[in-house]
Amino acid sequence: MVHLITGVAGFIGSNLAERLLDKSDIVIGIDNFHLGRKENISEQLNNPKFTFIEHDLSDIGQIDALMTKLENKKIDIIWHLAANSDIQAGIENNIVDLDLTFKTTFTANEICKSSSANTFVFSSTSAIYGNLDGKLRENSSPLNPISNYGAMKLASEALLGTSIEQGLNRAFIFRFPNVVGVPATHGVIYDFINKLNHNSDILHVLGDGSQRKCYMHSSELIDALLHCVEVVDQNGLHCFNVGPLDSGMTVKSIAKKVVAKVSPSAEIKFGDGNKGWIGDVPSFEFDISKLQKHGWNPNLSSEEAVEKAITEISDFLS
Amino acid sequence: MVHLITGVAGFIGSNLAERLLDKSDIVIGIDNFHLGRKENISEQLNNPKFTFIEHDLSDIGQIDALMTKLENKKIDIIWHLAANSDIQAGIENNIVDLDLTFKTTFTANEICKSSSANTFVFSSTSAIYGNLDGKLRENSSPLNPISNYGAMKLASEALLGTSIEQGLNRAFIFRFPNVVGVPATHGVIYDFINKLNHNSDILHVLGDGSQRKCYMHSSELIDALLHCVEVVDQNGLHCFNVGPLDSGMTVKSIAKKVVAKVSPSAEIKFGDGNKGWIGDVPSFEFDISKLQKHGWNPNLSSEEAVEKAITEISDFLS
Repeated sequence: MVHLITGVAGFIGSNLAERLLDKSDIVIGIDNFHLGRKENISEQLNNPKFTFIEHDLSDIGQIDALMTKLENKKIDIIWHLAANSDIQAGIENNIVDLDLTFKTTFTANEICKSSSANTFVFSSTSAIYGNLDGKLRENSSPLNPISNYGAMKLASEALLGTSIEQGLNRAFIFRFPNVVGVPATHGVIYDFINKLNHNSDILHVLGDGSQRKCYMHSSELIDALLHCVEVVDQNGLHCFNVGPLDSGMTVKSIAKKVVAKVSPSAEIKFGDGNKGWIGDVPSFEFDISKLQKHGWNPNLSSEEAVEKAITEISDFLS
Repeated sequence: MVHLITGVAGFIGSNLAERLLDKSDIVIGIDNFHLGRKENISEQLNNPKFTFIEHDLSDIGQIDALMTKLENKKIDIIWHLAANSDIQAGIENNIVDLDLTFKTTFTANEICKSSSANTFVFSSTSAIYGNLDGKLRENSSPLNPISNYGAMKLASEALLGTSIEQGLNRAFIFRFPNVVGVPATHGVIYDFINKLNHNSDILHVLGDGSQRKCYMHSSELIDALLHCVEVVDQNGLHCFNVGPLDSGMTVKSIAKKVVAKVSPSAEIKFGDGNKGWIGDVPSFEFDISKLQKHGWNPNLSSEEAVEKAITEISDFLS
């Protein structure tokens, strides 16, 4: 099997590449090192089954140049993981999510149409559901994301049907929860540990800490994706929520766990309101029954995933 | 009331501007004359209540320049009608819908956030429903468009919630059926009459003619939009299907009507398959009960709208 991974030097991309190479599959990785880091793929770069292409997928004018680079390469499956993962950066500058999330997906979708790939995998997010109430199902409606991050992920989802119409066998949309682990580049645990590394006396939390979200460890997320891609053999567009079985945990309880691990004497100072930032969805809960019907169940709860990640990220940042 | 209309020199934009100026409202119109035509707004340009700005909304790098041009202008409502309307052009070149539909919406949405506008109106399409079966409701799911045209319209819809989150009062998504009338720039009636004007002996039809779609006259469409914007006073994002009450008419029956009007002795030659092109949705039927619940009902059937438009377009093209 030959896999093309976009965003291969990022958090999830580098973990996926490692996993696929461990199976002795062939991996072609693309990254522009804007958010991804070369050190995240230092082992992969030494693997003869790994080919790396440095390319900026957000540059629509360079699609033909990329196609030339990929010419004569047999590709079975495209994992499109390149995206903006820095939600704050996207709030400060609306162009960030347009470029790093939407335009990269446009390019990946075009590459897919021109390549031999029969499967396209897209990493979407719970943020596409916006403020919808209740347990979120894949066919919940209407989808009105409230952040640039969520809007550009949903806009990206909208592109995938055109590849199916033009002959692609299978496209997968996986809507991720908060994914935690290493090499972390962003996220609440990473931010808290970073803050405490700079000032071990106090931890300032955005919002009142009541935000409740679902967390999954990257290792389990990749298990789920590989499982679905293996067992779903029907042609067409397949959408899955991927997450834990629980209703998540609060930012307050994460802050307490991080402080206990990293700097037990630190004081936690909360902000106002139930949102960390404009566009923050204060709470969500996934219905993952579709994933379960397809034979996959998570092992870790949100709390267990967070605890595992706190240990990993504090080691990673120390 | 001050209205900003993007795509003001296009088919629907020019009709809307005329209608609003007839009410003595103030209109600021934007167009780049890529698909729009100056002659479509020749009367409006002579109206002191009309201000025209020539600008390419697809140029994201020029957003700040446009904001400067709009500075000190009070705007109440933005009607974002600029889009690719040439579906064939979007099939031949995937960049067309990206630029003319998605990027223009990104710009319009950014302008909205920075302006005094409290209402944003977006012209969407039945094509966002893809191949969904049954009567299409606003909350039908999943939305998997199969054409670039539909994909970029759905991607555009995804952006609007971010304006609401940032303080905009109301955003309207109106999902249009096939809209007919003058000044036509594209569409099945326009194409048929054009073909017969070039060769009055034969009319070649894309596909087997069995495609069945809903048609609405532009005058009625604008009635419906103005009605909703007037009666829906609740803040938030509002989505409406806009269309006739019937289940549409076939391309074959439109071809027969056009031939009878324009060139009665012409032979009609049909192609193969129930699609006019890749990405064509062979048939759809709108549920417009939400529109009706809000007090608006169409007067014309699809057939009446088509008949009216055949007369208008054949006069327009002669």
